[in-house]
Amino acid sequence: MKIYLAGPEVFLPDAVGIGQAKKRLCAAYGFEGLYPFDNEIVASPAGERTDRLIYRANESLIRRADIGICNLTPFRGLSADPGTVFEVGMLAGLGKPLLGYTNVVDDLLDRFRRQEALSFDAANDAWHDAHGMVVENFGNADNLMIDCALVETGGHPMVRHKADPREVFRDLTGFEECLRRAGGRAAKPA
Amino acid sequence: MKIYLAGPEVFLPDAVGIGQAKKRLCAAYGFEGLYPFDNEIVASPAGERTDRLIYRANESLIRRADIGICNLTPFRGLSADPGTVFEVGMLAGLGKPLLGYTNVVDDLLDRFRRQEALSFDAANDAWHDAHGMVVENFGNADNLMIDCALVETGGHPMVRHKADPREVFRDLTGFEECLRRAGGRAAKPA
Repeated sequence: MKIYLAGPEVFLPDAVGIGQAKKRLCAAYGFEGLYPFDNEIVASPAGERTDRLIYRANESLIRRADIGICNLTPFRGLSADPGTVFEVGMLAGLGKPLLGYTNVVDDLLDRFRRQEALSFDAANDAWHDAHGMVVENFGNADNLMIDCALVETGGHPMVRHKADPREVFRDLTGFEECLRRAGGRAAKPA
Repeated sequence: MKIYLAGPEVFLPDAVGIGQAKKRLCAAYGFEGLYPFDNEIVASPAGERTDRLIYRANESLIRRADIGICNLTPFRGLSADPGTVFEVGMLAGLGKPLLGYTNVVDDLLDRFRRQEALSFDAANDAWHDAHGMVVENFGNADNLMIDCALVETGGHPMVRHKADPREVFRDLTGFEECLRRAGGRAAKPA
């Protein structure tokens, strides 16, 4: 079974190394991991833009995958990396089951409340931000479309693991739990 | 032609009113708008979670749509609303053409640089954030998967309009430009 490996680790200085670590873990559980850096992007003679070549390479890997495992750790703000979130949607649109994990355990609402003062409208039992816009309060780790996509397509809620903040984009504990939920069994050491 | 109307305006106090305004504009250009609040979510007797009912209702509208027009204005941080970004991905996965707009004109990199100090690695011609993670520099308004999805599926780059900051989640100038790019012709007033 082929697993598309989505996540913001593609932006790390050691993006290739972390991808190799994820692919080794996939193999140990009996799967094949497909990682964005598997495709070397070479500037085309026609002068095609690099970003579009990356888009097409990622889409091609997503279409080849049977399922996706997505790193939904909050990235540069309240929510997951938008590139990863796009890929979660694309996988769901293509009918591929999804598993996901985050290396921060708190709900979206709790993280937002720590970041800025939200107001509570008791009459409507609703939280609002500074623009008066509703803040979701479903006990999810992120926007409901993301959390629910995991449950609806893959049958499991998001795996939440409290990682060391210094390792928040490298910790693979939640990733490995997703491999187990995908039905993988770790190969016994020889 | 049916157009799915994705955007963070669903979180506004007048979410229904802004949806009606968008649907009226769609009709004026000869289209039918499908808006998340078209489906009234009623708690199910089986006690199904409300978030999952909303997910299914939105997915159902997305599947009925011929194309999507997405409000990708930065929302609670650097990037677009993650619920909208998920829907962009789902529409792309389902093979539906996308158009999108933002009410903030600056590139992702420029917005990020105003928010925090980034470091420039001259040897690799790359910007890095405080975690040493690469910041995209393709001149896009958001993550490349979002900007490129618009061009690859719909043939147009993201429409950028400089809205009054007080109207940033309500201004429909860019939305109307997307209706024109979708081939719509405004009906003449009677």
